[in-house]
This record gives sequence, structure tokens and C-alpha cells, in this order.
Amino acid sequence: MTAKIYVTLKKSVLDPQGQAVARSLGRLGFAEVQDARIGKYIEVKLDGTRADVRDRIERMCRDLLANTVIEEYRYELGE
Amino acid sequence: MTAKIYVTLKKSVLDPQGQAVARSLGRLGFAEVQDARIGKYIEVKLDGTRADVRDRIERMCRDLLANTVIEEYRYELGE
Repeated sequence: MTAKIYVTLKKSVLDPQGQAVARSLGRLGFAEVQDARIGKYIEVKLDGTRADVRDRIERMCRDLLANTVIEEYRYELGE
Repeated sequence: MTAKIYVTLKKSVLDPQGQAVARSLGRLGFAEVQDARIGKYIEVKLDGTRADVRDRIERMCRDLLANTVIEEYRYELGE
């Protein structure tokens, strides 16, 4: 099974990398860009039933993939 | 409008960061993990009609956000 995990900075946390990207896009002529925020996208292939996997992915996010002090995560289970 | 952009390494490209994450997950007790691959997730807020935005996002990806030699991108348009 494949899990698609998205880890993003919480709304309240400053995102300097995103600001740099937004400014760069502006300089490249994309004047319509107001804001950009950068996160991580992680695809994990793993064995297990759907219910098990859901629980395990939650744990992986809390233990390693996301820093829950400043980041939030969401995920989708694929095939 | 918000565009959600996913930039990932092409399947044929080695992903050492993903391998490190897969190994770390294994060491943390997640023995069911077979593979992990890491990409970028970018949220861009911008003005424009849906058709315009689609074209502009394509260009942003090619010009700045993705290195199309080794990466591929996909995106979704939100509200």
C-alpha cells in the first residue's frame, strides 16, 4: 500500500523559505503571486491492512516525519 | 486562488533522502516500511481566472519550482 503524507508548517509559523519562493516568483514576472508556503510530500510504501496502516502512519508522522510543535500533517492511503 | 503543487523526483532517479527516511522508520520499529520517497509540497496563493492560473502555474513549475531534468510536478487548483 502507498501512503501519501503532506507535512506543512502550522499557519501561525513563519515560513522564510516560502517567502523567498514568493519573492523569486515575483521577480521572474509572476506578479500575481501573493504568497507561497513550502511543505514536504512523502510517499511511503508499506505492508498491512488499511486500518493498521492508518494507525502506523499516524505514529510515523508523530515519531519522525513531522515536528508537531511547528508542523501539521495529513495523509491519504492509495493502492 | 490557491494552487497546490507537488514536486517529486522522477521514478528513475535515486532518492537518498527517501532511503534514509525508510531506514530510520525501520530502525524505529516500523518494519513494514518497504520504501519512502520525498518530494516538495508548495502552496501558492495568486490572483487570476482558473484558465490563466493553470497556464501560469505550469510556467512557474518549469521556471523555478521544479528541475524538470530530474523532477516531475503535478498541481491542483483550490478556492
